[in-house]
Amino acid sequence: MATYTAPVEDLMFVMEHVIDAGETGIEPETLALILDEAGKMAAQVHLPANAVGDVTPPTLVDGQVRMPPGWHAMHQATADGGWIGTSQNPDFGGQGLPVLVNSAILEILCGANMAYGLSVALTEGAIETLENIASDDLKQRFIPNLISGAWSGTMNLTESQAGSNLAAVRTRAVPDGDHYRISGQKAFISFGDHDLCDNIIHLVVARIDGAPEGVKGISLFVVPKYLVNDDGTPGPRNEVIPISLEHKMGLHGSPTVALSYGDGQGAVGYLVGEENRGLEYMFIMMNRERHMCGVQAIGVAEMALQHATAYAHERVQGTPFGCPPGTPIVGHPDVSRMLMTMRAYVEATRALACRSAAMIDAGVANPEYQAESEFLTPIVKAWSTDVGFDVASLGMQVFGGLGYMEPTGAAQYLRDVRITSIYEGTNGIQANDLVFRKVLRDGGTTAFRVLDQIKQFMSSTASDTPLMYERGRLKLAVADAEMAINALINADNQEPRRAASAAVPFLHLMGIVLGGYYLVRSASIAQRMLDGNTGAPEFLEAKAATGRFYVDHVLCQSAGLGHTVMVSTQSDGMS
Amino acid sequence: MATYTAPVEDLMFVMEHVIDAGETGIEPETLALILDEAGKMAAQVHLPANAVGDVTPPTLVDGQVRMPPGWHAMHQATADGGWIGTSQNPDFGGQGLPVLVNSAILEILCGANMAYGLSVALTEGAIETLENIASDDLKQRFIPNLISGAWSGTMNLTESQAGSNLAAVRTRAVPDGDHYRISGQKAFISFGDHDLCDNIIHLVVARIDGAPEGVKGISLFVVPKYLVNDDGTPGPRNEVIPISLEHKMGLHGSPTVALSYGDGQGAVGYLVGEENRGLEYMFIMMNRERHMCGVQAIGVAEMALQHATAYAHERVQGTPFGCPPGTPIVGHPDVSRMLMTMRAYVEATRALACRSAAMIDAGVANPEYQAESEFLTPIVKAWSTDVGFDVASLGMQVFGGLGYMEPTGAAQYLRDVRITSIYEGTNGIQANDLVFRKVLRDGGTTAFRVLDQIKQFMSSTASDTPLMYERGRLKLAVADAEMAINALINADNQEPRRAASAAVPFLHLMGIVLGGYYLVRSASIAQRMLDGNTGAPEFLEAKAATGRFYVDHVLCQSAGLGHTVMVSTQSDGMS
Repeated sequence: MATYTAPVEDLMFVMEHVIDAGETGIEPETLALILDEAGKMAAQVHLPANAVGDVTPPTLVDGQVRMPPGWHAMHQATADGGWIGTSQNPDFGGQGLPVLVNSAILEILCGANMAYGLSVALTEGAIETLENIASDDLKQRFIPNLISGAWSGTMNLTESQAGSNLAAVRTRAVPDGDHYRISGQKAFISFGDHDLCDNIIHLVVARIDGAPEGVKGISLFVVPKYLVNDDGTPGPRNEVIPISLEHKMGLHGSPTVALSYGDGQGAVGYLVGEENRGLEYMFIMMNRERHMCGVQAIGVAEMALQHATAYAHERVQGTPFGCPPGTPIVGHPDVSRMLMTMRAYVEATRALACRSAAMIDAGVANPEYQAESEFLTPIVKAWSTDVGFDVASLGMQVFGGLGYMEPTGAAQYLRDVRITSIYEGTNGIQANDLVFRKVLRDGGTTAFRVLDQIKQFMSSTASDTPLMYERGRLKLAVADAEMAINALINADNQEPRRAASAAVPFLHLMGIVLGGYYLVRSASIAQRMLDGNTGAPEFLEAKAATGRFYVDHVLCQSAGLGHTVMVSTQSDGMS
Repeated sequence: MATYTAPVEDLMFVMEHVIDAGETGIEPETLALILDEAGKMAAQVHLPANAVGDVTPPTLVDGQVRMPPGWHAMHQATADGGWIGTSQNPDFGGQGLPVLVNSAILEILCGANMAYGLSVALTEGAIETLENIASDDLKQRFIPNLISGAWSGTMNLTESQAGSNLAAVRTRAVPDGDHYRISGQKAFISFGDHDLCDNIIHLVVARIDGAPEGVKGISLFVVPKYLVNDDGTPGPRNEVIPISLEHKMGLHGSPTVALSYGDGQGAVGYLVGEENRGLEYMFIMMNRERHMCGVQAIGVAEMALQHATAYAHERVQGTPFGCPPGTPIVGHPDVSRMLMTMRAYVEATRALACRSAAMIDAGVANPEYQAESEFLTPIVKAWSTDVGFDVASLGMQVFGGLGYMEPTGAAQYLRDVRITSIYEGTNGIQANDLVFRKVLRDGGTTAFRVLDQIKQFMSSTASDTPLMYERGRLKLAVADAEMAINALINADNQEPRRAASAAVPFLHLMGIVLGGYYLVRSASIAQRMLDGNTGAPEFLEAKAATGRFYVDHVLCQSAGLGHTVMVSTQSDGMS
């Protein structure tokens, strides 16, 4: 049986020392208490239900999805603890915590149980959308019950012919008094039906009759599973029926359903915001949703790391070179290399995600910070998820043959985390978003500004002898990144296909370089703390070692990726 | 429903033109006919049973494993067609084909159905072991029925405390007249029980009472599931009982069982070769088995490539830059990049595996060729399997959300191929084998000789203007590989942990460089054939494009890997 210990020490180190987050408005002691509590709940409540959800997945019986055993109690405990809507408006029952803290809590929940953590993320996404866009009446009607966990939220975008391309949405909306009648079919809706809550609040993208073609004719509606009575209680069932449940490679605990809307008179739906502005509203939400998707993968990767580390310290197989007989397999240099690789990736993606979350918070009042958060989001989403999958696969490898056996649990992490590179916009779409909207639209201004932070760090630490090597390697990697940005700018002037051909290698390059920055910076801070005798020596020494390892095993890939970007931007990928 | 077309054109191109295999003793026309027939059988017989095996896995009922529906007919058709033991001794009913051809046939079988292809590979491994080591009497008793497919073979090495480390084997053998009595438990035995054949011939590693400790006390036995009557027919059941069936992440069609030997008087077993030489015998077989493991992954990767390519040419989603509306997703530069990456990896690993197989054939008469085959084998095993997994994962990514849904089939390829990095010796063990036995034992002689082939190719084509760029990049990569070999040699003189720390990055570096050689060489040959108007233009142009793509997307990683090897050899991974 796997155990999970929330990475509170690392999260606190990153938030307090590494990411330069400014004032969060919360004392470190309070923050540590919150994360400790989240960690206890995750370990005691969410972790045991994780394997149960994998082997006893939800079922669809008579138009109702039934959730796995133990999940109802888990949801109740989560809701009772106030863990849903931690960053939401206190007027509606939220805790008003920064996105940074909400993000750390989500990592912890997903580390123990990503399938359930996803339901929390979806509900928070729905709350956030309503909070930003809906009328006061809709807010009052839906948000308090979503925050309390009595109800849950979903996003209904995909249709079978409209996956990545929302322009192809066909779901119809017809005005009918103070509401609309919605009809059509949605596919691949996560938590589209379940029995954990009294009601499900679907945010549905549809086309009002007569609306313009394409994305300019898309509107956003809120469609509850049960109509809401005037006293706020759930009333009769609306015309939203789950018609099938998907059999997925992983994330079995999360019910993925096809929903049929309006088989009779049409499902009752309420317009959110204004007509035909649905895509714009989706974009408002997308950064936050994509950020959370990356964080899910970091959570699972951390769990895979803990799981493999525990096994490697226990399993004896062969005597490692230079070690006494009975030394466990962690003594084999290659097992150690695999665990270090996992750790390096987890800590690099975590630090980057924390910075990105802090920029979402700070961006509310400062457009430069907002631009940074928008720049970092596709990297957090796509790089953390690609790397999280590699981490889970390395975790399986540490277990050898046993890792391939389902009861061990390593396979579940690999299967679960794989979806994060696909949903919330495939990683290819993230890369295009990064290149076209976040780099080229402002002519590289934000991209170069982010790299300037690294240069400032290097010059401000130029006189520190330790980590001179790491800084030297970082300098080379930053040069690769600058070259790549310039290559994209030049390519775009010629032909957008060229920039698109280089998009994924460019995103990986940026992830690797920024991850390197945060780990070398972490190592530098850890070294100073060690010199000053503050902090826990074992933790700080590990930080320094992880930074060095990352530089020589991950950051060194920047040259190859830089080459790929350079050359890709010189052709249009049409051959 | 996926379709499969055996890659006969590419296999023939590689065998005839690229790998410099010398005389195979078979006319190209005959060879093409053999592979075409294998391809037809794979597409018509093996492919339909592949998904069936995944969703209707074998069951264990009353001490007998029952195979999935349709598998019995598939096995019969395979046996009747003479597809088992194609490279075996004609005196026993084999076809006496070169290992090179056998390897190509195995790739085709595994492309359509890796779980079943594994059973053929295991039986061929058992035949080969008996052929090399057993007495004439044992050969006569077992080999003809194995080649005919009436019986099947297994390898029984692993015990729960003895996975990678055979020194820990505890299974006992006690002399009893002309045979031995075997008792103990074996774990994770592929096809350890099933009902496809009349008998199962287990090759079992055990320790004779009083034998020396460790690997020097291991002997090899043949233990049939049913004792063999004097007339050669199966007699009463031997004491070999399947006690559990594993639930694995993938390869569901292949029954992985724990076997209990000798619950009564001890299972009857016959010594193969001499006492206490079991490990030595295993090593004789290991190169061939590990080669076949790499080939399994290449088969699945080819299938994943065909599957994703077909979808990308059919699915319409968004209009790619510079393309008319209705253009399928293959027009998106990043989808094209993913497919090209898949193709480049498949063709590079295939060419390398063909060269390695040809060296197994040629090595019988030539120690230099044998040394090359032994050098290439761990690279074929570990690099092809790691890369095959990446290919299957890219295939899933091409499908987007649909790829994560099991009925699509992409998930099965990913789940199935993942085991190949683990079994037949984990890829970490392959890397240690490469570094310590294949590079350092002869002081780098073989490793440098293999790189010299690349240099000879470059100087012999130095005056060819096309591909000058590719050759230039290859030259840089060869320099990275040479530097890495020298670093290993230096490290080994100091401390073996340092060489072990660098083993996996070194193996990947060698795979990438050798794959680059074979693809640039392929491109060069294709260009000459195009210039001379011989061969199919579309195929040849694609070869040139794939070579170029590989150079800029894969080969360029050599600098980063070279750095990792250099730095790793300077520390012992103890930190």
